[in-house]
Amino acid sequence: MEPFSSLITPDKNSKQPVYIQIANQLMELIRKGFLQTGYQLPSSRQLADSLNVHRKTVVRAYEELLAQGWLESRIGTGTFIAAHFPEIKPQSSLTEPLGNNNSSKKAGFTFEEKPHLNRAVIKNNIKLHLDDGFPDPRLAPLEELSRAYRTQLLTGNPYVRLGYGDTAGSYWLRKELSAYLNETRGLKTSPENILITRGTVMGLYLASTGLLKKGDSVVLGELSWSSATGNFLQAGANVVKIPVDEFGIDVEALEKICKNQAIRMVYVTSHHHYPTTVALRADRRIQLLHLSEKYGFIIFEDDYDYDFHYLSKPLLPLAGADRSGMVLYCGSFTKAISPAFRVGYLVGSENVISYLAQLRRIIDRQGDTMLENAMAELLQNGVIQRHLRKSLRTYRNRRDYFCGLLKTELDNYLHFQKPDGGMAVWTEFDKKIKLKDLSEKALKNDLFFSDGSENNSPTEIRNATRLGFASSTTEELEQCVGIMKKLLS
Amino acid sequence: MEPFSSLITPDKNSKQPVYIQIANQLMELIRKGFLQTGYQLPSSRQLADSLNVHRKTVVRAYEELLAQGWLESRIGTGTFIAAHFPEIKPQSSLTEPLGNNNSSKKAGFTFEEKPHLNRAVIKNNIKLHLDDGFPDPRLAPLEELSRAYRTQLLTGNPYVRLGYGDTAGSYWLRKELSAYLNETRGLKTSPENILITRGTVMGLYLASTGLLKKGDSVVLGELSWSSATGNFLQAGANVVKIPVDEFGIDVEALEKICKNQAIRMVYVTSHHHYPTTVALRADRRIQLLHLSEKYGFIIFEDDYDYDFHYLSKPLLPLAGADRSGMVLYCGSFTKAISPAFRVGYLVGSENVISYLAQLRRIIDRQGDTMLENAMAELLQNGVIQRHLRKSLRTYRNRRDYFCGLLKTELDNYLHFQKPDGGMAVWTEFDKKIKLKDLSEKALKNDLFFSDGSENNSPTEIRNATRLGFASSTTEELEQCVGIMKKLLS
Repeated sequence: MEPFSSLITPDKNSKQPVYIQIANQLMELIRKGFLQTGYQLPSSRQLADSLNVHRKTVVRAYEELLAQGWLESRIGTGTFIAAHFPEIKPQSSLTEPLGNNNSSKKAGFTFEEKPHLNRAVIKNNIKLHLDDGFPDPRLAPLEELSRAYRTQLLTGNPYVRLGYGDTAGSYWLRKELSAYLNETRGLKTSPENILITRGTVMGLYLASTGLLKKGDSVVLGELSWSSATGNFLQAGANVVKIPVDEFGIDVEALEKICKNQAIRMVYVTSHHHYPTTVALRADRRIQLLHLSEKYGFIIFEDDYDYDFHYLSKPLLPLAGADRSGMVLYCGSFTKAISPAFRVGYLVGSENVISYLAQLRRIIDRQGDTMLENAMAELLQNGVIQRHLRKSLRTYRNRRDYFCGLLKTELDNYLHFQKPDGGMAVWTEFDKKIKLKDLSEKALKNDLFFSDGSENNSPTEIRNATRLGFASSTTEELEQCVGIMKKLLS
Repeated sequence: MEPFSSLITPDKNSKQPVYIQIANQLMELIRKGFLQTGYQLPSSRQLADSLNVHRKTVVRAYEELLAQGWLESRIGTGTFIAAHFPEIKPQSSLTEPLGNNNSSKKAGFTFEEKPHLNRAVIKNNIKLHLDDGFPDPRLAPLEELSRAYRTQLLTGNPYVRLGYGDTAGSYWLRKELSAYLNETRGLKTSPENILITRGTVMGLYLASTGLLKKGDSVVLGELSWSSATGNFLQAGANVVKIPVDEFGIDVEALEKICKNQAIRMVYVTSHHHYPTTVALRADRRIQLLHLSEKYGFIIFEDDYDYDFHYLSKPLLPLAGADRSGMVLYCGSFTKAISPAFRVGYLVGSENVISYLAQLRRIIDRQGDTMLENAMAELLQNGVIQRHLRKSLRTYRNRRDYFCGLLKTELDNYLHFQKPDGGMAVWTEFDKKIKLKDLSEKALKNDLFFSDGSENNSPTEIRNATRLGFASSTTEELEQCVGIMKKLLS
């Protein structure tokens, strides 16, 4: 008999049943060509003795392999490796332990890793934080959302409700959202102009994958949101940067570029430019729309925080003034509820929306119908609207309080413009201050804020970062600024 | 005064406030170049009279435009179009109604629509159905899921719980799933080998977008799942088809191809081939793994219904016997709960998984952490496992009952092999029967089943379709077969 005890080594402490371990290891011996077609296996009793396991365990392992066709049983004779196996030469010597190599770490094939995908993920579990500009989930209507989700999950015809749905998203949510966007943003949409996404990231991804070809030029402000750049690079686009000043992206610079080369898309965060928070001035908006018609480029308007503006009125989106179907408008509920709520929307002409819904089908098939319907219910009942009004007041107070603290406590070390909206202050630090060091020291003192490096580009490096105020109470903001002051002085 | 009443036409029945309508239409007049920089607007009283609205409405519209910088107010003189506007020549005659064109239907730019994305979406709201092979959501543990979701939503630190998380998915679910896959499928995974997806579609999309280059060759069986083909075409791959017989894909045909051209990936539904439901025979499995090592191609193993096998034991996945890191293994909870549950997983070597998690970041950022954690809780408590055992028994009975009915009632019109697993019977109809007509007639009799055309390819057209039995009770199955019999005889 072959020395099976050295070849088959079940681990009785493993969660995997011993008989499966034995079957797997036998399969591997066959696959590696050590046990060849026609080979007679030891009887179950012999193998059980040799492995020091119960005979029934071996019987179950053999049954498993018989059922799978690896073995065949000849009555009165014994159990054999099945006859229709290809003969494979042993690939490794028996001294090499089986099933103990590196393949769980590293694949057996190579692949090209695109450098633009290699970005640090900032996860922040620290109690005190001045984040990128996130909402305070303590204010969010989670109880209402949980109830609405439960209703969607448990009420009505389950086969229809839990079956495959429209790849453009829940029609109910599209209907509610259309009315909501028309009322609050001056848009003129119908549900057919709306695709429900998993947030702004997916809106960007669909638009760039669906509408850009390799080599197309896309214009962004310098600085801009790094995820947008990543998405355009992924689509094979040629990324062109234009300056951003206190009135938003420099539209004159854009026109100069348009005169010299074809531009397929312009990415703009018109309401509050990311990361610097400035609003695109009205005349630049007109001119941008005018250039879009003249040169035929698509405007991708990322309106990530329209609902949070602290002056009398927010600027209406470009999309509302677009009469030629050049604007794709993108938003999400991330800032209204929390980053973990992956529900957003893309608004555009019907033919674009229905095409991007086809593309979406092969990416993730469809959204979470129950969650989308729950959001529709909350919009229909005005829960989201009331929540937004309430949190707008809270965030305005927090902004005022935080900017006051920065001014009175840290005026020597930094400067900023009080933002008219959004959830973060774009803060430029004195050149002598090394933001990376400061951010690392802060972390050791239980305060998280970014060193801002993810916003820098090779051609523009700023000693600045976004300090989010919305997710902290005034007491927490006070503690944050106290720690910063201690570290700076 | 200009004839404003013909240019500005607010609709009092619209849900959009009248002042926003007036502001938008004024903006449009400015943008279209009809109202030029420096032009003095009529007083609010004059315009209100002319439009037959309240004066305060016009004042609010003007205030809106003043706040946005479109207008400027000169004390004691009036309201003017702001000075810093670029002069834009009128682009359209005033006879053309403003804001009343076709842009909501059709974009102002063109784009290439890829034909492989243009596929019919089958939505089925019919009471009686023999579907593609969906589970019965009446059996699913929805009450437990709803409770678990609520717990995840409302318990613990909301800032951490509802903030951005790992792009590879909830670590808790990855841990539970790793243990579950190792126990039930003989895999040897750790959480780092697992990426939580939005279902099989996303697993396929990530693998094809991340690992294929334009022109790479991908091999599939003829017939295969049309969504897989769509995904490979989207990645720019060259799709090569090989025959499928009663033992699965023809691995000898694959070897012949490998000898003549480089193959990057082979797509296989090894457990129950889609659509024909046959299992890949053990010797072909060995040979496929062997060829994968020899020729360096990736095996994408789509194990969409592993949990549903009615013989003593399911065949263990290829992934369990892969010792060289050549297999990407893909599954989902779609068949365990319902199609609307978009939670699945991709299993592979750590370096591939972490790269695909980077790619996933720019597609939809991350999954639904709350839902993923709820699934983890249900796995940890054994709820999913109990549900699977229970529904396995139910579906086995339904299969037996349905196959019995087909045999006794419809034997003259069709033939089939009773499937060893899965949720559908691959049914070939007599050549004289036109499946498209039959399916249309059935729909008029409140019975849905597909005409099977989505499974056909240009080179292989079969008069066959999948008839799903799992989502119907035996009484419902009886009604379905009754209707078919009536239509056929």
